[in-house]
Amino acid sequence: MIAELISVGTEILLGNIVNTNSAYLAEKCAQLGLSLYYQTVVGDNEGRMRETIRTALDRSDIIILTGGLGPTEDDLTKEITAEVMGLPLKEDAHTRQLLEDYLAQYQKNDAQRRITSNNYKQALVPEGAYILDNHNGTAPGLIMEKDGKTAVLLPGPPGEMKPMFEEKVYPYLRKKQPETIFSQMVKICSIGESQVADEIQDLIETQTNPTIAPYAKTGEVHLRITAKGGSQKECEELIRPMVRELERRFGKNVFAETENMTLEEAVTVLLWNRNLTLSTAESCTGGAIAARIVNVPGASDVFLQGMVTYSNEAKKRTLGVSEDTLRLYGAVSEECAKEMAEGGCSFSGTDVCLSVTGIAGPGGGTLEKPVGTVFMGCCVKGKTTVREYHFTGNRARVREQTAAHGLAFLRSCILENS
Amino acid sequence: MIAELISVGTEILLGNIVNTNSAYLAEKCAQLGLSLYYQTVVGDNEGRMRETIRTALDRSDIIILTGGLGPTEDDLTKEITAEVMGLPLKEDAHTRQLLEDYLAQYQKNDAQRRITSNNYKQALVPEGAYILDNHNGTAPGLIMEKDGKTAVLLPGPPGEMKPMFEEKVYPYLRKKQPETIFSQMVKICSIGESQVADEIQDLIETQTNPTIAPYAKTGEVHLRITAKGGSQKECEELIRPMVRELERRFGKNVFAETENMTLEEAVTVLLWNRNLTLSTAESCTGGAIAARIVNVPGASDVFLQGMVTYSNEAKKRTLGVSEDTLRLYGAVSEECAKEMAEGGCSFSGTDVCLSVTGIAGPGGGTLEKPVGTVFMGCCVKGKTTVREYHFTGNRARVREQTAAHGLAFLRSCILENS
Repeated sequence: MIAELISVGTEILLGNIVNTNSAYLAEKCAQLGLSLYYQTVVGDNEGRMRETIRTALDRSDIIILTGGLGPTEDDLTKEITAEVMGLPLKEDAHTRQLLEDYLAQYQKNDAQRRITSNNYKQALVPEGAYILDNHNGTAPGLIMEKDGKTAVLLPGPPGEMKPMFEEKVYPYLRKKQPETIFSQMVKICSIGESQVADEIQDLIETQTNPTIAPYAKTGEVHLRITAKGGSQKECEELIRPMVRELERRFGKNVFAETENMTLEEAVTVLLWNRNLTLSTAESCTGGAIAARIVNVPGASDVFLQGMVTYSNEAKKRTLGVSEDTLRLYGAVSEECAKEMAEGGCSFSGTDVCLSVTGIAGPGGGTLEKPVGTVFMGCCVKGKTTVREYHFTGNRARVREQTAAHGLAFLRSCILENS
Repeated sequence: MIAELISVGTEILLGNIVNTNSAYLAEKCAQLGLSLYYQTVVGDNEGRMRETIRTALDRSDIIILTGGLGPTEDDLTKEITAEVMGLPLKEDAHTRQLLEDYLAQYQKNDAQRRITSNNYKQALVPEGAYILDNHNGTAPGLIMEKDGKTAVLLPGPPGEMKPMFEEKVYPYLRKKQPETIFSQMVKICSIGESQVADEIQDLIETQTNPTIAPYAKTGEVHLRITAKGGSQKECEELIRPMVRELERRFGKNVFAETENMTLEEAVTVLLWNRNLTLSTAESCTGGAIAARIVNVPGASDVFLQGMVTYSNEAKKRTLGVSEDTLRLYGAVSEECAKEMAEGGCSFSGTDVCLSVTGIAGPGGGTLEKPVGTVFMGCCVKGKTTVREYHFTGNRARVREQTAAHGLAFLRSCILENS
C-alpha cells in the first residue's frame, strides 16, 4: 500500500521549525511496510491545501497529515480534508466533554486564561470518523475512510503527535497490511556513524530479506533489521541470524535491541542490575544529563542527586574541587573532572558519579582548549576514569553531543569497573 | 515571486535523516521576500521526479532542488530537470578540471578510493546553465533559466549546500527580487495560545500590510509581524505601530521582541539587569530547567548552581527540607517547594532560587495529587512565592511544560519581588 505525508503549517513551510514529524512518520511507515513516495509541506492556505490533499488522495492509499488541527481560524486541516472526501462535520459529544475537562484543568492553573468559542470548533468531527483522543493537548486526531482511501489527521506538536500515533494509529494501520513486516532494532553507542557504515557495508550490499537500514542519532547509530514474511515467527527467524552477526561485530557497544529502549534506560537498568546508585556533577551540560536519566520512569531508585556546578564556587563548595586544581589546570581539565566525579560520590553518598566539564562556546575557547573541548570523569566505587572529548558545532550541538557521549561513557565505565 | 523547494533522496523520504535543508532554505526565501507555498520530498525515482519537477515549474517561478547531484546512477536531479526544461547536456571543461583536481586530492588521502566513469557524469551541464563551483565536495550546483522560470540545483549535504547558497545563490536571487520583506517577532509567555488568538483576532481579520502570524510553543506564543515595502526602513515603519499595539494588549507578558531571544535568555538578562544571582532546586524536572538556563551563552555570570534533589535524602541534606515537612505534607507539596526554594538560596548563596517538585508519572499519582501536579517555589531575596500547577500528558510532556512554565513563573516573581 502507498502512503504519503503532508505537513500543514506556515511555521514549517517558512522554516520557523524543522520538520521532525516527517522523519518520524516516514520511519514508522517503513516499519509498517508501507511504500512512501512523497512528502509535502503546505501552508495554512485553503486553496493550496485542497489541491495538495486532492492530489495525494489521488495517487496514494493512505495520507497522513500533521498540523492545522488547533483552535484558530488558520487551522483548516480537518475542514478541508472532510470537504475533499465528501464527509460532513458535526459536533461530537465525547470530544466536547474531553475538551471542556482539559480547558477546565488549564483554567485552574491560570485564572487569566479564558476559554473562547474558537476552542469548541475542535469538537466538530467528520461523519463516521474514528476519533483519536489527545491526552497531551486539546486537538483530537482523526481517521477518515472513504472509497478505499484513508486519511489520518494528527496534531502538529511532536509531543502530541507521537504518543497518538503510537497508541492508536500504528495498530490501526498494522491491521490494514496483509503481509507481515517485522523489524528489530540494534542500537549502538561509542562508535561513529561512518565506522558503523563501513563495518556493515558488505551486509547492506548483499541484503535481500531481511534488509538493514542505518539511522544516525546524536552519539548513537540505530540499525533497523526488517523482514517480510507470512507470519511474525517467520520474520523473526529471518532476522535472528542478522542480529547475531551484528552482535558479533559490535560486541558490547550494542546497548539495546528493542525499539523503545533508550541509552539512558539501558544505563539505568545496568545500575539496577548491579545494585549501584548514581549522581551526576555537570558543568557545561547544565543538568542535561540528569534530565535525560530522570526521563526514565523509576529512575529515582538509582539516581539520587544531580549537581549542576556551573560556577567555580559551586565546584569547590559542593564537590570539594581544590583551589589549586582550579588555579593550576582550570575548571576545564582532566584534574577537575576527576575531582568532580570523586567529590560527587562523597557529597551525595552514591556508588557512581559522572562528571562533565567543558567549553560549549561560543566564547571561552583558547588555542590549547578550543570550543568543544570536554573532559568527563566517572568514579565507580572509588575507581575513576577520565576522558577528553572534542566536539564540533554550536553551543547547543556541543551540549547535546556531550550529554549523549556522557551516557555512553558512563555505561562503559560501569561495565568495566563494577 | 513564488518559490518552491524540492528535496530529492530516498534517505530523507524514508526518514533516515531529518530534512534540515528545507527549514534553512525556507527561512532564506522568507528573507528574500519570496513567497513559498510548497515543499516536496521525492525519492530517487525517475517518473515521480519528472512529475514533481513539472508540477513545481508549472505553479512557481523559482524552484530550488537539493540532493541527487552525486555520481551514482541514482542521482538524476540534473538530468531530469534539464529534460523537463528542454535544455540539452554537454560536458563543461572547467567543471571537468575542478572535478579531476578534487578527486586527485581525495586519492592522495585514500588510495583505496577509485575514480569511476560515473564520476565524470558530474561534469555534464545543461546548455546555458550558470555553474556553481563546489568547494566542499564534488557535485557542482547549477542555475538554469528558461521561459521566465528558474531552477536552482544544490547538493544535498548541508555542509556543501549552505556555503554554496550563501555565496552564490542568495546574491543571485536577491537581484531578482525588487520588493523588501522585513519581519519582527513578539514573544509572549504566561498566556495560552487560544487566548492570544482571541485577543488578536480583530488585528488578524483586518490585516493587510503588515501581517501577523501566531506560532504556539510549549508555554509560549510567538507572533511574527511581517511587512513588505520599498526598503527596510519603510517596512520597519509599517511594523512599529503593530508592535506597540501588541505591547499594549499583552503588557509584561511580552518577554522578547527579537527572533533569537529565548525565554531563558530573557530571564538571564533580567537577572543581569537587576544584579541578581540564581540557583535552581529541581525534583521532577531533573535538571531540565538548569539545562535551559545554561543554554544561554554567558549564563555563568548569574547562574551559580543547580541542584537536582531527586531523593528525599538529597532534599534534606542539600536543601535543608525538614523531616517534618516530608512526613506531614510529602515531597510534592506547597511546604516542600517553599523550603526547597529557601534552602536553595542558603546552600548556594544566591539571591534567587526556583524550586519545582511534582509528579511526572506514569506512577506516583494519588486522588488528591494526580499525575501532573507540580508545586513551584520562587524565593527572591527572602520573599517566597509558591504556586500549584496541573499539567496533562505523559511524563516527557509534564516535564517539558513544567520547565517552560517554571521559567515564566521565575520571570514573573523577579518582576514582582525585586
